[in-house]
Amino acid sequence: MRATFLYAAGDVRVEDVPDSSLTHPTDALVRITASCICGSDLWPYASKPDDGPVRMGHEFIGIVEDTGPEVSTVEPGDLVVAPFAISDNTCEFCREGLHTSCVHDQAGFWDGLPDEGGQAEAVRVPLADGTLVKLPVAADSALMPSLLTLSDVFGTGYHAAVAGGVNERTSVTVIGDGAVGLLAVLSASRLGAERIILMGRHPARTDLGRQFGATDVVSARGEEGIEAVRELSGGHGTHVVIEAVGAMPAYQQAVGAVRPGGVISRVGVPQYEDAPIGFGSLFGPNVRLAGGPAPVRAYIEELMPAILDGSIEPGKVFDTTTDLDGVPGGYRDMADRNSLKVLIIP
Amino acid sequence: MRATFLYAAGDVRVEDVPDSSLTHPTDALVRITASCICGSDLWPYASKPDDGPVRMGHEFIGIVEDTGPEVSTVEPGDLVVAPFAISDNTCEFCREGLHTSCVHDQAGFWDGLPDEGGQAEAVRVPLADGTLVKLPVAADSALMPSLLTLSDVFGTGYHAAVAGGVNERTSVTVIGDGAVGLLAVLSASRLGAERIILMGRHPARTDLGRQFGATDVVSARGEEGIEAVRELSGGHGTHVVIEAVGAMPAYQQAVGAVRPGGVISRVGVPQYEDAPIGFGSLFGPNVRLAGGPAPVRAYIEELMPAILDGSIEPGKVFDTTTDLDGVPGGYRDMADRNSLKVLIIP
Repeated sequence: MRATFLYAAGDVRVEDVPDSSLTHPTDALVRITASCICGSDLWPYASKPDDGPVRMGHEFIGIVEDTGPEVSTVEPGDLVVAPFAISDNTCEFCREGLHTSCVHDQAGFWDGLPDEGGQAEAVRVPLADGTLVKLPVAADSALMPSLLTLSDVFGTGYHAAVAGGVNERTSVTVIGDGAVGLLAVLSASRLGAERIILMGRHPARTDLGRQFGATDVVSARGEEGIEAVRELSGGHGTHVVIEAVGAMPAYQQAVGAVRPGGVISRVGVPQYEDAPIGFGSLFGPNVRLAGGPAPVRAYIEELMPAILDGSIEPGKVFDTTTDLDGVPGGYRDMADRNSLKVLIIP
Repeated sequence: MRATFLYAAGDVRVEDVPDSSLTHPTDALVRITASCICGSDLWPYASKPDDGPVRMGHEFIGIVEDTGPEVSTVEPGDLVVAPFAISDNTCEFCREGLHTSCVHDQAGFWDGLPDEGGQAEAVRVPLADGTLVKLPVAADSALMPSLLTLSDVFGTGYHAAVAGGVNERTSVTVIGDGAVGLLAVLSASRLGAERIILMGRHPARTDLGRQFGATDVVSARGEEGIEAVRELSGGHGTHVVIEAVGAMPAYQQAVGAVRPGGVISRVGVPQYEDAPIGFGSLFGPNVRLAGGPAPVRAYIEELMPAILDGSIEPGKVFDTTTDLDGVPGGYRDMADRNSLKVLIIP
């Protein structure tokens, strides 16, 4: 079978590898029918040192080909979606909806598995009962792009809004017009926010943001961008700021744009460890900080019906489709911002 | 009249100053009957450069002597308590209970007022209608120490617990056995927490913590202290960690002791601006950060009845009483940890 490797910054290769196969009685083998490239893949694509290749891809839909003897919730032939975190769905954290902190010793992120990845023809899925969710459609359904967003990007945008406490009484700023930011806009809108300010400078993306529910777009950055958000929000910033980038300037923008007593909700993977949280940033104005890797498994059942009935179309974030051969070019196009998000049909 | 000045680190003086007097129509003049030294006063006492004296004290009870023509809620003869933040109690933030972010141009912290302070014989209170709260007892009431804690230390401990979302389903760690930490224990207990772990190493203080509701005391610090909390909490830490110190080691301890998906609630004034909040600290386990300077004005009416009916006695945090002459010694005793909290009867 073929699978995607990142060798070093800018060096993506699709290569032949031994077929994935069951190794644990709780595994499922899934033939991948749709996958994609994540904005978070672009961080190692920009900076990975040349210290050996890693398998890539953590968002996919596929058809179950085989299951271990202890798997009971899916069977060969089922179409399934996998969240970007592997979990048993039964431990104390999973039961609380925090599947990204599952305590099972096989739990974790796809990106931490050395020999499996979603940008491939097939994949071994650990803890299949906990991880996989059946889809009630055929693999050729036109809903496939939107259903694929349940594996990460929509659930991540939704987590940002939920962790930020968005409701009909909160104003919201979303920093970042990548796919997660745009789906955070959609999520904030679904949760009832009436004022949603999208900070982004790529008109094709911010136009989609408006379709998803953004009421205002601010293209300025830094201090100028902060001033623009404050002007739009009565001078004090918005109740919630969703930071969907992960870079320090985006965090600083969030600190400037949030209202005293408000929340900064982060879902962009932080490219920093230390950041300002003292009296002059978060403490003085009682600003709260929330967010983290999204337990998307917790949201799949909640978000799927609106996709199935056509009332929302989060799959609009895919503006490019390719096969496995096109994956290296897909990374390049996303890094160059020529593509918003690349769908892969292996 | 006499008032307290901090000249430089370790140099506290009580000096004669011109009598405080009304300067705005919304002012009240208050003759102070009880005041105290705050744990937060010890930060400048430890480190203030020799760049000119500043007035000290932001917690007091007193009797109104005079009021400006626009003051309507208090009158001469009233016994009143003042929170450590001056606020109008009518702006959008005050109405939301965030009086520390009051937008009135006379709002702010006592510590920012150049010519007034609570460790003195009298004080001019700006925005008297918003700031002062009448006490329904006489100035010689035995409840005075407990009522004085409404000006800061009890409200701050309570804010820590409220901002942390403490309830009957949350386990709680309190870092710091100072007066705020101990009253955070009392607050967590009142909010229903059944497991309250107090981290502190001064037996007289942790004994009081047990009286206030601590179920466990951990005297170890650093990694050892974190391990002890984890052992007491099923291996994962507690749902809420209240950080009532403000120093970086206390923050690091909080990061180690909090459960994935939990909250660190800070009320110790941070002695740092940057701190770890990236994937390896807060982001990865979806830990939230909350807290800030407590809007104690918002809590006074809520907390007072239990003091008046004797069901709680937060004033037990005062273990020393002095007059104004004893204030420099009081600072020294608190800094040396010979006193927990010093009550001043001017």
